[in-house]
Order: sequence, then C-alpha cells, then structure tokens
Amino acid sequence: MTHKPPYIVDGLQYCRWDRGIFEQMRTGQLSAVHVTIAYWETFRETVANMGKWNRMFEQHSDLIFHGRTGDDIRRAVLENKTAIFFGFQHCSPMEEDIDLIQVLYDLGARFMQLSYNNQSLLATGCYETEDPGVTRFGKQAIAEMNRVGLVIDMSHSAERSTLDAIEISARPIAITHANPSFWEPALRNKSDDVLKALSASGGMLGLSLYPFHLKDKSDCTIESFSEMVARAADLIGTEHLGIGSDLCQGHPDSVVEWMRNGRWTRDLDFGEGNKSQSGWPDPVSWFANNEDFGNVTQGLADIGFNTGEIDGIMGGNWVNFYDTSFGPENA
Amino acid sequence: MTHKPPYIVDGLQYCRWDRGIFEQMRTGQLSAVHVTIAYWETFRETVANMGKWNRMFEQHSDLIFHGRTGDDIRRAVLENKTAIFFGFQHCSPMEEDIDLIQVLYDLGARFMQLSYNNQSLLATGCYETEDPGVTRFGKQAIAEMNRVGLVIDMSHSAERSTLDAIEISARPIAITHANPSFWEPALRNKSDDVLKALSASGGMLGLSLYPFHLKDKSDCTIESFSEMVARAADLIGTEHLGIGSDLCQGHPDSVVEWMRNGRWTRDLDFGEGNKSQSGWPDPVSWFANNEDFGNVTQGLADIGFNTGEIDGIMGGNWVNFYDTSFGPENA
Repeated sequence: MTHKPPYIVDGLQYCRWDRGIFEQMRTGQLSAVHVTIAYWETFRETVANMGKWNRMFEQHSDLIFHGRTGDDIRRAVLENKTAIFFGFQHCSPMEEDIDLIQVLYDLGARFMQLSYNNQSLLATGCYETEDPGVTRFGKQAIAEMNRVGLVIDMSHSAERSTLDAIEISARPIAITHANPSFWEPALRNKSDDVLKALSASGGMLGLSLYPFHLKDKSDCTIESFSEMVARAADLIGTEHLGIGSDLCQGHPDSVVEWMRNGRWTRDLDFGEGNKSQSGWPDPVSWFANNEDFGNVTQGLADIGFNTGEIDGIMGGNWVNFYDTSFGPENA
Repeated sequence: MTHKPPYIVDGLQYCRWDRGIFEQMRTGQLSAVHVTIAYWETFRETVANMGKWNRMFEQHSDLIFHGRTGDDIRRAVLENKTAIFFGFQHCSPMEEDIDLIQVLYDLGARFMQLSYNNQSLLATGCYETEDPGVTRFGKQAIAEMNRVGLVIDMSHSAERSTLDAIEISARPIAITHANPSFWEPALRNKSDDVLKALSASGGMLGLSLYPFHLKDKSDCTIESFSEMVARAADLIGTEHLGIGSDLCQGHPDSVVEWMRNGRWTRDLDFGEGNKSQSGWPDPVSWFANNEDFGNVTQGLADIGFNTGEIDGIMGGNWVNFYDTSFGPENA
C-alpha cells in the first residue's frame, strides 16, 4: 500500500477551474495548490480574475479556500479542504508601478514571475536570444517583493536573469515549475548552475509534469521521471525539491495560444510547441489530473526515496518554504 | 537682419503648456512642435492627456491646432498658427498590447520612443548597464509602427538598441532630441556610429538645447553649439539635421522628478542630474523659450551655413520627414 504524505502541495497549476477539479483535488488529497491567475493581464484584469476566484471560494467553500500563509496549509489538512494560493506567471499585473507590489500582496498574491518567455520590465524570459539580467527596475522590484513577502518565481526566465535574481534577492526564491535541463534540455528547464545557486540560497524547485518539460514528452515514464528526481536530489539535496506539476487541465487550444501570444505579437508564437504541434500536449498516462499524485508518490518510493524524503518532496518542503516566505520577514 | 526660414519646426518640447507659451510660439514663428504627452503613463492616462490637449486646441484655436500630417505644417504657416504633433517618450501608452499602436496612431500620436532611460518591453534605455538590443516584442512593435506610420524615436535608448531599431525598421526613424557625443559625452547623446547609421537610413536627428546635452551645460555658448552643428553636418550632411530643443519650460522640480522616477523606483533616481543638482538646469542665455529660435538661426548663419542649409535645419528637413513618415507607406 502506498504511503500517504501528510501534505501534498502543488507548486503550480493552471486549469479550467470548476467544481469537478476541486473535487479531484480532494480525492488526490491536495493540501495546497499555487494557481496561476495572470499571464499577460494588466492590474485591472488581474483584479477581475481575483474577483472570479472570490466567487469560487464562496460557491465551493466546502472544498477550497484562499490561502495566504503557511499555516493555511495546516488548516486545509484539518478541514479536509485545499488551500488555493494566487500567483502570476509574469509581472504585468504590477504594470510599471512598484507600489502595486504591496497592493497585489494585500489582495492575496504570493508568487510573481519576473518575466514570462519574453523580456519584461524586470528581467529576461527564456525565449529571448539575449539575456542582460535583472534591470534597474527589476532590482527595485526585487527589494520591494522581499520587503512585502511576495515570492520571486523564475520559472520562465532566462539563465543569467535567474542567477541575478537569486543573487540580488535577500530572501530565497522559487522556480515553481521546471525540470533540470540535464534530463530534458528544453529552454524552459534549468541548468545545474541555476539549480545549485537556487538551493544554496534556500530556494525551491517545483518539478514539472508538463509534457514539454519531460524527457520523451507525453511518453515519459514514471520511472524516468523518478530517476530524474533522484539525480536532482544527488545534485542539490531533497529538501529543495517539490512538485510544480504545471497541470493545465480542460482548456481549449485557444488558451495555450493566449499563454504564448498574449497581445504582444501579430505573428503566431508556438512557445515550446511548433507549427505541427501547436495545441496542448497529451498528458502522460500516469498524471492526468489531481487524482494522480499517488502515482508520483509511488514512483518516488519505487526509486528508493525514504518516507521522510517523499514527505518533503510531495509537500513538506513547500510547507517550510511557505512558512518563511510570505509576508514581511520576522513579522 | 536675420534671415527667416519658411518653416520652423521643433522636434521636441515638454512645457507647462498655457496660452503664454502658445503666444511665444507665434512670436518665434514656430510652424510645428512635437510635444511629449506621455512619459510613464498607461494607455488610459495617455488618453486623458489627449483629452486635455483637445481642450487646449478648442480654447486656443487662434494659436494652435492638432497636427497629423506634413501638410498640416504648411497649413500652420498659411493660418499663422502652430501645428502640435503628439509623441510619447516611452512605450508605456501601448502597454503590452500591439493593437494599441494603431489605436494610438488613430488618436493622433505620431512619435513613440521604444524605451525611456530604462529597459522597456521593446528595447533598452540609455541608463541600463546592459543593452541586449531590440526584444522579441520590440521586433513585432517596429513592424506594426512601420505599418501604421507611427515614427520610432530612440532619443533615450541605448546604443545597440538604437542601431538595432535603425536596422530592423523598414522606414527611417528619428532621434528627436539629442546631440552628438563627440561634442558632449553625455549618456543620452549619440555616437558617430549611431549618427552615421541614422542618416544612411534616411533618419533625422533633432539637436537638443537642453543644458544636460550641451558642452558646458547652462554656460554653453551659441558659438559652441553652432560649431557642433557644423561638425555634425560634416559627419552626416545637413539634410538629416533638425532642431529638437527639449524645451521644458515652466515646470516645478516635481515634474523632472516624475520624468526620472515615474513609478518604478523607491530610491530617487537623478537621471542626467545628481544629488547636488537634482532639479531643472538653468537654460542657456540664448534659448529660454520659443521666442529665441532666431538666435539659433543667427548662430547657424554666423558659423557659415548658407540659407538653404539653415532653412533645412530650422524646419525644412523635419517637413520632409513628416511628409513621408506618418501614416501607411504610399497611402
């Protein structure tokens, strides 16, 4: 019988949210999920998305609630619910206004990527050909994010910008959803240098189950994934590893087109895909929705992780990170 | 007696606009002025600034009107008025939405800088330490600006980004207000390489009278300025030179603080100034307002420019550029 970790935390999801998915979260015993609520949205559009979530918290209060602190994960376990933490994949919600960082935090945001694929006002994205690192504004924004306790996420950022952010940030950062490039050399995955700097500074890597980040893509086996986790643990230790499934369930292809193209291009950009595979990739057979986290737990056990390590990777490490990363330091 | 050029066009001003300044424009016989209507403004805030200008066009219709075409400069001369052309010093008015380029053009915008001092979504500003050149979004935006006929202005951009923009743009670009760095090596001034590439592609340089861009700053003499114009003409020819005075008349120091700091920093940025000189610089004695363009004309005559050259630099070259740069090509 599969061991059940006390906490299961998913470092990133972006689903077509509905009651069915929240029920699957309960079946899968998800304690907490960091959900994306903005890709290219302006501040005002992001607030509208928060409004939609507030309605869902009201309508599905038996299944989910808005998480704001590490303790909310413990509350979720006690109440048999899933705590939902807000995050942005890009800095567009703060527009060009550093004061919006605290405003967004006050509204419940807990993660913000400094750049999404492209050059942003703060840092460079992974699909630019050049990466000048964190900008003048980016240095200011990092200091302010540190001050209010909004976590810096570099999942879609380029190498030098990511190393810069780790160096400049006074508090540990997160890469909520990506894999080591030693296993799958996608532009979105992370180099050994980044992984070592991340862990040395106390940061977290959420391991992704999104097919474009996996070796053999949609055909990736749980054995191959688990071997990668073991190698990553050899490289940086287990305590900096979590899951960040990047589960994107139920969306039509128009949504991945929005994620890639926003409003910035008149030519179609295919992101991690290409012209002949422009839509959503098929999920791997062993991870299609929130009910499948047990397969990941089992895979980690099968590759030889002990119970303490599994508990950490499946959720405990994120709990520790949430405990110290949100809100002002020593508050 | 001083020769009077048929057109006087100022490539950039940002004043505390009022009837007195519009009257000075008439005294100075200004045919056209490109005015800044946004530094860090969002789309919505830029539209509000357009609204304020629309009121001024209504209230002062005996002195000014909204210019949209090169022919509007000829109309201004015939009607003894000054045509006012809208421009932005930064790309913030288009936010992260390429479709706003045409919308802004339709509302009357004719110039947009790709970056202002800092890294933008499109290109790098002159005060960043790194300059990766035009971004992925920047390439898209340049193509769209070329399509609708919104002029690319690189006055506050960094070197490589400026060379990139000249290379990528299918239509000539402008540097509406800057001087050659061979004369005054300010970060905002332009290298010989930039000036040569700009002129080779049919672009225009508007020579600045803002003290921070001048040799000896507020003590710069008209002789020194005119000698610089002569050297610039030797380097790139007279037909690519105009005036872009950067006249910033009547503002309190809080306005230059806004121009430098926008909403991007919690530390004070001093831009071209410094802590001990944080406010507006004093204007040079021979150029304090729109009545003083005759001094510039006279200075060019004194240094040996002939009448045709003077007429071009004081306005005719901008008229030629406006004639071909606004709106779709061959429209």
